[in-house]
Amino acid sequence: MNKSTSTRELERMMDLVKYVIFPDYSDVPKWTDGPAAIREILLDQLPTVMAETAAPAVAQSFVNALPEIGRLLNTDVQAVAHNDPAVRDLGEVVLCYPLVKVMLNYRSAHCLHELGVPRIPRILTEMAHSATGIDIHPAATIGEYFAIDHGTGVVVGATSIIGNHVMLYQGVTLGAKSFSYDEQGHPIDKPRHPILEDNVTVYSNTSILGRVTIGHDTIVGGNIWLTHDVPPCSIIRQGRAVEIRDAQDSAEI
Amino acid sequence: MNKSTSTRELERMMDLVKYVIFPDYSDVPKWTDGPAAIREILLDQLPTVMAETAAPAVAQSFVNALPEIGRLLNTDVQAVAHNDPAVRDLGEVVLCYPLVKVMLNYRSAHCLHELGVPRIPRILTEMAHSATGIDIHPAATIGEYFAIDHGTGVVVGATSIIGNHVMLYQGVTLGAKSFSYDEQGHPIDKPRHPILEDNVTVYSNTSILGRVTIGHDTIVGGNIWLTHDVPPCSIIRQGRAVEIRDAQDSAEI
Amino acid sequence: MNKSTSTRELERMMDLVKYVIFPDYSDVPKWTDGPAAIREILLDQLPTVMAETAAPAVAQSFVNALPEIGRLLNTDVQAVAHNDPAVRDLGEVVLCYPLVKVMLNYRSAHCLHELGVPRIPRILTEMAHSATGIDIHPAATIGEYFAIDHGTGVVVGATSIIGNHVMLYQGVTLGAKSFSYDEQGHPIDKPRHPILEDNVTVYSNTSILGRVTIGHDTIVGGNIWLTHDVPPCSIIRQGRAVEIRDAQDSAEI
Amino acid sequence: MNKSTSTRELERMMDLVKYVIFPDYSDVPKWTDGPAAIREILLDQLPTVMAETAAPAVAQSFVNALPEIGRLLNTDVQAVAHNDPAVRDLGEVVLCYPLVKVMLNYRSAHCLHELGVPRIPRILTEMAHSATGIDIHPAATIGEYFAIDHGTGVVVGATSIIGNHVMLYQGVTLGAKSFSYDEQGHPIDKPRHPILEDNVTVYSNTSILGRVTIGHDTIVGGNIWLTHDVPPCSIIRQGRAVEIRDAQDSAEI
Amino acid sequence: MNKSTSTRELERMMDLVKYVIFPDYSDVPKWTDGPAAIREILLDQLPTVMAETAAPAVAQSFVNALPEIGRLLNTDVQAVAHNDPAVRDLGEVVLCYPLVKVMLNYRSAHCLHELGVPRIPRILTEMAHSATGIDIHPAATIGEYFAIDHGTGVVVGATSIIGNHVMLYQGVTLGAKSFSYDEQGHPIDKPRHPILEDNVTVYSNTSILGRVTIGHDTIVGGNIWLTHDVPPCSIIRQGRAVEIRDAQDSAEI
Amino acid sequence: MNKSTSTRELERMMDLVKYVIFPDYSDVPKWTDGPAAIREILLDQLPTVMAETAAPAVAQSFVNALPEIGRLLNTDVQAVAHNDPAVRDLGEVVLCYPLVKVMLNYRSAHCLHELGVPRIPRILTEMAHSATGIDIHPAATIGEYFAIDHGTGVVVGATSIIGNHVMLYQGVTLGAKSFSYDEQGHPIDKPRHPILEDNVTVYSNTSILGRVTIGHDTIVGGNIWLTHDVPPCSIIRQGRAVEIRDAQDSAEI
Repeated sequence: MNKSTSTRELERMMDLVKYVIFPDYSDVPKWTDGPAAIREILLDQLPTVMAETAAPAVAQSFVNALPEIGRLLNTDVQAVAHNDPAVRDLGEVVLCYPLVKVMLNYRSAHCLHELGVPRIPRILTEMAHSATGIDIHPAATIGEYFAIDHGTGVVVGATSIIGNHVMLYQGVTLGAKSFSYDEQGHPIDKPRHPILEDNVTVYSNTSILGRVTIGHDTIVGGNIWLTHDVPPCSIIRQGRAVEIRDAQDSAEI
Repeated sequence: MNKSTSTRELERMMDLVKYVIFPDYSDVPKWTDGPAAIREILLDQLPTVMAETAAPAVAQSFVNALPEIGRLLNTDVQAVAHNDPAVRDLGEVVLCYPLVKVMLNYRSAHCLHELGVPRIPRILTEMAHSATGIDIHPAATIGEYFAIDHGTGVVVGATSIIGNHVMLYQGVTLGAKSFSYDEQGHPIDKPRHPILEDNVTVYSNTSILGRVTIGHDTIVGGNIWLTHDVPPCSIIRQGRAVEIRDAQDSAEI
Repeated sequence: MNKSTSTRELERMMDLVKYVIFPDYSDVPKWTDGPAAIREILLDQLPTVMAETAAPAVAQSFVNALPEIGRLLNTDVQAVAHNDPAVRDLGEVVLCYPLVKVMLNYRSAHCLHELGVPRIPRILTEMAHSATGIDIHPAATIGEYFAIDHGTGVVVGATSIIGNHVMLYQGVTLGAKSFSYDEQGHPIDKPRHPILEDNVTVYSNTSILGRVTIGHDTIVGGNIWLTHDVPPCSIIRQGRAVEIRDAQDSAEI
Repeated sequence: MNKSTSTRELERMMDLVKYVIFPDYSDVPKWTDGPAAIREILLDQLPTVMAETAAPAVAQSFVNALPEIGRLLNTDVQAVAHNDPAVRDLGEVVLCYPLVKVMLNYRSAHCLHELGVPRIPRILTEMAHSATGIDIHPAATIGEYFAIDHGTGVVVGATSIIGNHVMLYQGVTLGAKSFSYDEQGHPIDKPRHPILEDNVTVYSNTSILGRVTIGHDTIVGGNIWLTHDVPPCSIIRQGRAVEIRDAQDSAEI
Repeated sequence: MNKSTSTRELERMMDLVKYVIFPDYSDVPKWTDGPAAIREILLDQLPTVMAETAAPAVAQSFVNALPEIGRLLNTDVQAVAHNDPAVRDLGEVVLCYPLVKVMLNYRSAHCLHELGVPRIPRILTEMAHSATGIDIHPAATIGEYFAIDHGTGVVVGATSIIGNHVMLYQGVTLGAKSFSYDEQGHPIDKPRHPILEDNVTVYSNTSILGRVTIGHDTIVGGNIWLTHDVPPCSIIRQGRAVEIRDAQDSAEI
Repeated sequence: MNKSTSTRELERMMDLVKYVIFPDYSDVPKWTDGPAAIREILLDQLPTVMAETAAPAVAQSFVNALPEIGRLLNTDVQAVAHNDPAVRDLGEVVLCYPLVKVMLNYRSAHCLHELGVPRIPRILTEMAHSATGIDIHPAATIGEYFAIDHGTGVVVGATSIIGNHVMLYQGVTLGAKSFSYDEQGHPIDKPRHPILEDNVTVYSNTSILGRVTIGHDTIVGGNIWLTHDVPPCSIIRQGRAVEIRDAQDSAEI
């Protein structure tokens, strides 16, 4: 009987990745050889989704990538601190912001996805989705100094490309607008999500859909439905709302 | 002393329901007699919310309904796969999408609600809400091939009626716009949420409020506040956003 | 070696706060001296974030505040019941609505914040954020009879001021629009979030940003991006969406 | 369906009895109302072995007896310390000697046995037997200042009567020699175990069998098979062993 | 890497064996298919000590033997009840006597030993030894209606042969007196423990050593060192102890 | 508030000691830095029984002693295998014999005792006593190649001195016969237990009491009460038992 992937073991692996990258903010005991432990869990779990013979090389490549994953995560932590006046020190970001949970899982999942591992990357990002309400597909491409604040409801689709110094607020969707089906009736997996260039900020609850490009140094306001390209250095905001004074009852809304 | 309802036991029951419906994706050991175990938990928990004498018949009816609940869930899984080009096989949907968690709980809760069980159905859907950010009231009516993708922030109110082949994206609200109070000052529980006919798709963050009908084969774009009926075969989208080139500072948004 | 803050102990403390305030809806055994247990956990955890000598006075002040926290929570429970026709009794609100989880943590965190405790308040509200998708900063000020329904995606920023009888639906953001940096390049922490006066209702997915004032007895519709003051007794709604009949394909959205 | 007795709950009850009697040597948190907790467990467990209506009075009587059980246990602790030169303080006896475990359970079980509770007393003493190798029947009568050292293999039968200041070493049996059967072929339960008067010491591995009386101030040496009365102020020892010098091989033993 | 035998899994297997044989005295939920569960654990654990290809047949043979193991255990339970006037019903023996724990493990271990399984039988009997102080080697042969009372310190060596209706009290050893070494210096494993014919009773702390035969219907008193054959229908007792009246101090013992 | 010693932490420490010494027979994951983990537990637990300033040096000394403790334990394992024909390989001794549990704890406890640590050594040996029925005082002195088989009921007193190649069977006591009291009425802690020279074997249930010397190369039979010196190369056995043929009833024993 084929062993099935263990979510519990993958959770343990992510605790170890956090321990390797942020040892001062982890419950894993200091006497643990983190990379060895991560390798052992991967050697046990990878064969549930791919050829057993390929597992050792993939596991080693992932362990080798940990320093780079750590470097990127540290840029993300700094980006959050740079964008939130309520932050007092970087430790507060690691302990109290959903960003670290979601980016630890996304950046690890993306690395495994790049190494050709099926299914496990999606399990890792769905774990983070359940804990934070932030859903980033492992196949998405995300640059340095990526910040999300609050984050509930954020969605980043599989073919999204995000530059450096991008900030997304809660409820932002980088989604697909439409797609076609192949001859067997399966939807076709081709580029269908937005490209956000460097230094883009998107405010809460805005949906950007389709293979559009948001030019660098652009600010997209909140609650917008955006399905076309935006040139660099733009500001976009919703049409003004209608106001009714001295309203008698809410039936009018 | 009156025993109180045990959330932990209800979680165990939902694990067993998942095991009965998707045995290959469950941690429950194969030697478990799932229906017997579910019946026993219900016989223990139902008396915390209703007359003990009524419990055996209700428990048996729920167990009898499991095959139909399973059939509906399988249509939901297929609907997600049909709408997401990133899906590689149905197993990935069961393992990596919040839909299964939320619809297992909703479809079970709806069945218990129909059998006249108070409170427990709401506990089941709130469990799924906490895990997925998707909040479907057990009293809502939902057809076959129901798909939710990402889903964080979706709300489906108690008197909503949803047809077949309906797809909701993250942040969609099917809510109430207003309601009246009875003579004791309690809000009156009457039809106040939308009706979505067959083949309706609603994009991210749109709110549809009140007892309105969205006609069949309609696409509702994202980030819309919709409080009136929509005829069949419509497309609705938000008014275009305002764009400002070469913005100097974000104070303008 | 400096002990670090234990999330697990803080979770246990919040279970005890719930037991003290809603003993009939808690799993904590009845023979527990709740205030003594809460004091002991605080005496153990406060020294991880502040001077050990200050801990006893802070712990005692928090325990002394429990009756007032309980009184406010009971007004919140009543407000939810008053605004949701699906509610059958107050017990259902305590058991099945995310409001109690999030407001127990926020009102406790706010009290500790007022007592000068660093970091722990943010850990408490982030716990509730992860469980409910509702993110309320401990420094925010919130009056009596505060109601949130569904709630996923709600964000209440650190300098928000909310009056009595305010109701927020899912996806509502009370956020900051912009902020300046000090000479060291740190963002400046000054009033930057909205003021909502008494009797304000905000519908789903609306974002209110900046130090604006929403006057009393106002209804703000859903999916609005609002960055300016609103006078009392107003009704605000989104501009009407564009409708296209007999749509052939979704590429038009 | 009849609930069955829960060994785990009875273990929790004994932890609480230890907490009430030796609070400084217990892991039970200080904020626990021990007697209330013990009463609640008894109210839950007694109906598994006796009429539910009788449970409240029995539970209350047991709680009322806790101070006397505690007084007796303290005399036992002092007796061990008085007989073992390796003891440094009474705390060491409570923490490091099997006596406290076995006598807590026996003295509690004996009290419940006297109150007419079936089966639970035997479960309590068998718990202690498994943990310490010391098997004291709950029906046995034991005076003050009772000491056991090491204790593995000690057996005290159901109709034994033990005075004050008695000391038993490991492997001592106070057993039955023979018994008769009634007309249905059941063994008859009548006095069949020894009486040990005050100030008796019995050394390791000695078996005293039958309804014999060991007079006060007597010392019984080790490894003796004793089936007759012994007058007060006696010393008894085994017949001298045979010695063989310069033995070539062990086949001779 | 070779998986090692899991003591925890073997403990779970013994819980299941108890559930199959004494379902009314087991915590295992009634909806468990016991034989299927036992088979699955064996299929997982047997390959840690023997060829994986042999595991299915051995596992099936063990499951097939469960009814016979159950029949023998029931005779053991009756034998204890027949020999202890303090017993009120058979349920008390199952719940409160170490016999059931030790004989469940021994009779299961013996069956696996007969099926050629290495090491696991010894782990099973050592588990029972740790819990009860009774150490029976899986290779020993034991008939029906075998009773042990109290039992702490009982040892039954690997080549012992025990008939029907045999009763052993605490501290009884059926051991080896001496053995020889082979050319490599390993001790030789040949018959070296006693044979007890039917209807033999051995009282507490007696040691019977070597390949001697104790004839049927014999009573061996306690605290005896016995290394020679005993004919049927014998009674054996220790030489009488020396008594010293009015002893002044214990130095004389 | 003074923290109290944690039995659970000490159990974890002993698991780690076993992992360091017998890594192939331990559940501790291979990526654990055993000595670092042991040091950390000691740094946490030692201050509960001694001056905090002394803890680092003691912890380091204990870690430094681990190789020597391991060397001694390996001689013990070999001694058991050399004395039991039923043993098939050394792994079986490590997995299935109580010796390893009891000697790991004794040899670690003895080392801590020599380093001047109070109370914790006794807690360690009492843990082993509860699990195995073997009670060795941490202050006792024991040479190499020490074997215990079965072991239930073995007691080795605090001032015992045991040479190399000594073998004790179950129920053997090396105890004190008598002691005097000081002026405050406390029993005086001076040499009062036996000395066993090299190559001594003591059979089951024998009690050797007082400061007597058992000369080298001696065999002491079972069930003997021995309170005087024995010259080297002796064999000692119990006086012959009395036999009664054709016994009618057991009242005669």
